[in-house]
Amino acid sequence: MAELADLAAIGMLLGWDQLVMMPSGGAAARAEQLGMIARLTHERATAADIGDWLGALDGAQLDGAQLEELDRDVVRIARRDWERARRVPEELAVEIARASTDGQESWQLARANDDFAAFEPALKRNVELARAYGECVAEEGQSAYDALLGDYDFGLSTHELRRVFGALAGALPPLVAQARVRTPRHTLEVPVGAQQTAVANTLRRLGVDADSWRVDVSAHPFTAWMGRGDSRVTTRYSDGEVESLLSSLHEYGHALYERQIDPALDRTNLGGGTSMSMHESQSKLWENHVARDAAFAEVLAAELGAGGFAVGAAELHAALVGVEPGAVRVSADPLTYPLHIVLRFELELALIDGQLAVGDLPAAWSEGMRRLLDVEVPSDALGCLQDVHWGAGSFGYFPSYALGCLIAAQLWEAMQLELGPREQDLRRGQVAPIQSWLAERVHRHGRRLDTMPLVERATGRALEIEPFMRYVTPLAEA
Amino acid sequence: MAELADLAAIGMLLGWDQLVMMPSGGAAARAEQLGMIARLTHERATAADIGDWLGALDGAQLDGAQLEELDRDVVRIARRDWERARRVPEELAVEIARASTDGQESWQLARANDDFAAFEPALKRNVELARAYGECVAEEGQSAYDALLGDYDFGLSTHELRRVFGALAGALPPLVAQARVRTPRHTLEVPVGAQQTAVANTLRRLGVDADSWRVDVSAHPFTAWMGRGDSRVTTRYSDGEVESLLSSLHEYGHALYERQIDPALDRTNLGGGTSMSMHESQSKLWENHVARDAAFAEVLAAELGAGGFAVGAAELHAALVGVEPGAVRVSADPLTYPLHIVLRFELELALIDGQLAVGDLPAAWSEGMRRLLDVEVPSDALGCLQDVHWGAGSFGYFPSYALGCLIAAQLWEAMQLELGPREQDLRRGQVAPIQSWLAERVHRHGRRLDTMPLVERATGRALEIEPFMRYVTPLAEA
Repeated sequence: MAELADLAAIGMLLGWDQLVMMPSGGAAARAEQLGMIARLTHERATAADIGDWLGALDGAQLDGAQLEELDRDVVRIARRDWERARRVPEELAVEIARASTDGQESWQLARANDDFAAFEPALKRNVELARAYGECVAEEGQSAYDALLGDYDFGLSTHELRRVFGALAGALPPLVAQARVRTPRHTLEVPVGAQQTAVANTLRRLGVDADSWRVDVSAHPFTAWMGRGDSRVTTRYSDGEVESLLSSLHEYGHALYERQIDPALDRTNLGGGTSMSMHESQSKLWENHVARDAAFAEVLAAELGAGGFAVGAAELHAALVGVEPGAVRVSADPLTYPLHIVLRFELELALIDGQLAVGDLPAAWSEGMRRLLDVEVPSDALGCLQDVHWGAGSFGYFPSYALGCLIAAQLWEAMQLELGPREQDLRRGQVAPIQSWLAERVHRHGRRLDTMPLVERATGRALEIEPFMRYVTPLAEA
Repeated sequence: MAELADLAAIGMLLGWDQLVMMPSGGAAARAEQLGMIARLTHERATAADIGDWLGALDGAQLDGAQLEELDRDVVRIARRDWERARRVPEELAVEIARASTDGQESWQLARANDDFAAFEPALKRNVELARAYGECVAEEGQSAYDALLGDYDFGLSTHELRRVFGALAGALPPLVAQARVRTPRHTLEVPVGAQQTAVANTLRRLGVDADSWRVDVSAHPFTAWMGRGDSRVTTRYSDGEVESLLSSLHEYGHALYERQIDPALDRTNLGGGTSMSMHESQSKLWENHVARDAAFAEVLAAELGAGGFAVGAAELHAALVGVEPGAVRVSADPLTYPLHIVLRFELELALIDGQLAVGDLPAAWSEGMRRLLDVEVPSDALGCLQDVHWGAGSFGYFPSYALGCLIAAQLWEAMQLELGPREQDLRRGQVAPIQSWLAERVHRHGRRLDTMPLVERATGRALEIEPFMRYVTPLAEA
């Protein structure tokens, strides 16, 4: 387990270095190195040895030797991961990896040329392989799509997603319509230098120090953790945008989750975030509920001021929470964002289930965008070709983005119920109680609890859409 | 073989990142990751599979199937490496690794407190383990020290080193005495900013571009190569020194060697520099024969000028080649440097052979410094405790530093015999013919030729001290 944890950390470093430090000429060699780490990981994760050890542990328990609670969880998750990994035939795994590389290449070209037909064969292949993979991995009573979800969010079911996303599909469009009649999204022309100062100072307030963090620039913001005491976030700056303020807090949320996992879980199979949706909930909590908070806008405005850009907190806040329905997911505001995900969930589920032919995807996309967001899709490039996920063979990944928004809102309400309103603290940039509450209720558990049990334990309730609706309703009315 | 090459590259990245990028808090996790890569490498390098494959290849050849020449070299070196690695019992390897960690810690404390007695037990242990290791690895007729040399320089013998270093011990001290009566070493007070400009511009002239290089700062200059198209050198700057000009060209020489290896050898067991001494010859060639060249001083002076520090080429050259005998190896000039190594060779050989007791090391050190360099050792900290190598358990490594100086001088003469004097080219910063000659004669072979055969093939002569003596004699007279 320690070796697998080390391999994961090394893979993170290879990836971080590639995106932040590596000269472009090193790309081919780096691909080989990443491939080797992936092969070693697969080899060790599926080793027959693990089965033997698990068997020996079963025997030991029968003899009356009892494991401690933590060790029981290590064994439980080891068994789950090992059995799941062993269900995939080597040849299928190799084929999927190859199709993923080909698919991303084909997708890149197709998007550049706005040519869906050029992407269709690769997408068809990825759908078939994902279905085959899901069928291998599925447990008794699970559909292929259920099984795919498990790679990102163990324990999540299609049934549960239909319930939650169905509710969003009903509740959000009226709010979008309401927001649409209002003035257009407020923008601010913040120079890069002021953004840099504000990002550096704000992160420092949140505990980002040089002893155990790095903050760098990359083409797309991301977070990497190389092990305890080494968290790395990236951001990007473009003139006249405020995205860097949001994205740096978003990445901070991912990093903080990993940092606050119980050190006793280090280098075990439990020492990571429990799921994609839980991870996304942590980034969205800091992005939506801290960076977009009206009181915290005073801190951000002051730090922009320190960077030489004078702006009032109210004006800054308006720019950070503006709503404007559009075709593109990654630039969507917090209100419309989940509807982009609902669409992708509906479509990828239909593709895997065979209800939707790959060739009919563009039409289904346009129909969905009209129905959910009342947006006309200008082109396939800005429609069903906008995201890399399906080209890379990832199905079942998208839902975590919207679940993250919902979970973040539910955690935020539960936290305030317990700690009281955060307004006074946020106005002064005081986030220590938030960090502690998250550490205790969410972070420290690592992988010991799956998403839904964790949400229920942290908030006292099963996942529901109401807290999120209470968060976005004022945005539509602003 | 490809996996081992990838593991080596990944180890390089982990090391580079630790020294250049990693926040200090990540040290413990990084040590685990490096340990895991070392274990994986050992596991794979000694795998029984390799023996089976080698056996099958023997069988195939008996059947008349012939390997191509390159493949024959792959197999030959694979057999050599595998057999050597298999001779070391697992427990001994583990003990050595542990003693190396302990020894470095003990050395660090002892040096800080100038307390040799505190280091003595750890050094004794390292000597015993190195001797045991040498005895395991030694082939018929080899001494333990011969065998130790093979880890850094395969094919090198104690006998050969006695011949070469004995000659240096005779020929250099009179030159040192001659230099000593002259004016003290000329120094220059170059500000860091000017050094940075000069280093960047000079490296750019040598082909260091952003597409396949990185140049960073670290506490001690070093070079890392992560695979084709990704070379990384570091340097350091201190106010009023010119070391950065020398050390950046030194590291460039290491990097160029790896870059110019035949791409057909990539990800084979042949795709690296053939030995420590050959590597050091490449760094020393650029440091001693280019950076310290009188004509090239015009380029360096111009680039310092571009950085705002006006200096004449002759004055700069004088500062770069000044001779001044001293106690410390790492700050030694090109003339006295090999004598520091001759001393270490004599002493480590005597330690491993059992002719010198560890407790007698400080006295032997002082005697040797007096005899070879006419220098009084001010303290053990600046005497036998100055280098980490023995504390880390490295015996047989030091000779490569002096061999590198000799080989560099011999290559430099052979090159000029063939290409004509380099003076005119160097005055204009033109180094393409040097690069090509090195690629053709030295670099492209990778590990296909061992040090001595490679020197002989590149220069037409066995290794000798005369070219080096011709290089340093004018320095003593300057």
